[in-house]
Amino acid sequence: MIHAYAVKEVGGQLESFEYDPGKLGVYEVEIDVLYCGVCHSDISMIDNEWGMSEYPLVPGHEVVGKIAEVGEGVVDLKVGQAVGLGWHAGYCGHCGCCNSGDENLCSEGIPTIMNRGGFADKVRASERAVVAIPEGVDLAKAGPLFCGGITVFNPLVQFDVKPTARVGVVGIGGLGHMALQFLNAWGCEVTAFTSSEKKREEAFELGAHATLNSRDDAELKAASGSFDLILTTVNVKLDWNRYLQTLAPKGRLHFVGATLEPLDVSAMQLIGQQRQISGSPVGSPGTIAQMLEFAKLHKIEPVVEEFPMEQINKALDHLREGKAHYRIVLKK
Amino acid sequence: MIHAYAVKEVGGQLESFEYDPGKLGVYEVEIDVLYCGVCHSDISMIDNEWGMSEYPLVPGHEVVGKIAEVGEGVVDLKVGQAVGLGWHAGYCGHCGCCNSGDENLCSEGIPTIMNRGGFADKVRASERAVVAIPEGVDLAKAGPLFCGGITVFNPLVQFDVKPTARVGVVGIGGLGHMALQFLNAWGCEVTAFTSSEKKREEAFELGAHATLNSRDDAELKAASGSFDLILTTVNVKLDWNRYLQTLAPKGRLHFVGATLEPLDVSAMQLIGQQRQISGSPVGSPGTIAQMLEFAKLHKIEPVVEEFPMEQINKALDHLREGKAHYRIVLKK
Repeated sequence: MIHAYAVKEVGGQLESFEYDPGKLGVYEVEIDVLYCGVCHSDISMIDNEWGMSEYPLVPGHEVVGKIAEVGEGVVDLKVGQAVGLGWHAGYCGHCGCCNSGDENLCSEGIPTIMNRGGFADKVRASERAVVAIPEGVDLAKAGPLFCGGITVFNPLVQFDVKPTARVGVVGIGGLGHMALQFLNAWGCEVTAFTSSEKKREEAFELGAHATLNSRDDAELKAASGSFDLILTTVNVKLDWNRYLQTLAPKGRLHFVGATLEPLDVSAMQLIGQQRQISGSPVGSPGTIAQMLEFAKLHKIEPVVEEFPMEQINKALDHLREGKAHYRIVLKK
Repeated sequence: MIHAYAVKEVGGQLESFEYDPGKLGVYEVEIDVLYCGVCHSDISMIDNEWGMSEYPLVPGHEVVGKIAEVGEGVVDLKVGQAVGLGWHAGYCGHCGCCNSGDENLCSEGIPTIMNRGGFADKVRASERAVVAIPEGVDLAKAGPLFCGGITVFNPLVQFDVKPTARVGVVGIGGLGHMALQFLNAWGCEVTAFTSSEKKREEAFELGAHATLNSRDDAELKAASGSFDLILTTVNVKLDWNRYLQTLAPKGRLHFVGATLEPLDVSAMQLIGQQRQISGSPVGSPGTIAQMLEFAKLHKIEPVVEEFPMEQINKALDHLREGKAHYRIVLKK
């Protein structure tokens, strides 16, 4: 039996929940959970914001732990090995995306939460979705890399961002604070968009070379035409045309924050300077592995607050209240 | 003196207009106009749709002619040589875009129409903006390549479109009918989006492998997730989220048509499948030269209707009435 925490109805509290996962699949592994990060998507799923939740629902998709058991077809992962598991617990394994190393875009990818997530003592997943953690990475802090971290790292790989690029980050929170660190190590000139004096100071510590107060018209105007990439991590509607104006020719406004309102962008803003808008979700296991090596080399770690897993409801309230600084990790 | 046709007020008729261009600049050339294409942007400028027109205004920016005179600093172009001139008559020559071969994105680029356009017996431009036409290209049909043609060719170069790509073209008109030809020769699987039976037949002749009636819900639905690139040439608002759904993972919806209404796209449509939206204007002289060689090799020509230049008002009415099939060229 697996001892987990589940929510039994839309927006409910998490409660103890036991389930029998059955026989381990041939290509599956079982992970002893050590830590699990708490992501805003857990709340979106608890609240059924995306209309795909099924209850009882075990959230948790930033899992760090050790392999407890491997299926008989598993080749690469060994019992006792430190591993992580992110948004996806499995992929179809045979579509065009899976065949191209873009498993994260597989339309039949199985979200870890749908499968039973990591707010539990154990979790199961397909070998293909589980990534070994290199020695030297702090397991207590690695969890948030597996969803928040890869979500901001992946666009740098996907769009071949150059170290010479000037990059802005909108939203200095759970994702943004990792983006600043990755971009700094990537060689880029990094600007944090923030209107908070406290975050401004922290942004510099996290790797920003400059900050921009996006509520200040003069600052935004002065930045016209300057960014090769703006990475937006927020899930609220902003005046995107004003951000487009701060892009250099060929610049990209990239969305990783799930903003639900239409983007209302002007085609003319795109055409005149060959600008682009894009979005992306998490990353493939191959890119997660690259990220972990990069994070290790450059000593990149999320800033975390640790809660014991049994205080999960307290931790979720803390996140809902916008108080997480910057990312919450539950310790089993 | 140069004998031209100018419009003297917003939306006015074109009238004979003479002007003295002064001494030829050191790096300028004067072109004896043989042909000039008529582009929808000429009408936008006549009507001051973009708020940048100054009157008297000489439209015309799809010029084909022969070099009549060269400035003393001109190196590459010779008197008598066949050349073309498109949207830009000059660039600043020293900005980041100009230094990267992206002169078409130069923020100080001088539109040919603002400088005095090609509805005239002669036109002047900076050597850098004038492109030699390879022998074997039919001068009577080459004009539309210099604006409409390069506008649809350029994205293939800019975004490194692969011959294995599946590409849709929205709007089978002045631009779209050239896009079908270029894409076919590029090796792509080409689908023309059209709801007209007549255009459907012509689309196949122009290089489409398939057509899709975008007013037919079932056809659109069947195409879900299938296009790597959709090139839209229309300047009206469509339900862009429905087009986004027809994009494959990593697919791109690219705008070359100057649609003025906000695009209203959903961020979630972009994020889930790593899709992107972009726009671009014309192309650089270097890309125009590539396009001309490609067009020559593959026998790509716009389908044109020819009018004598003195019937310019009749030609413009024909275009305004949506009757151009597919592109109008004025013969001097």
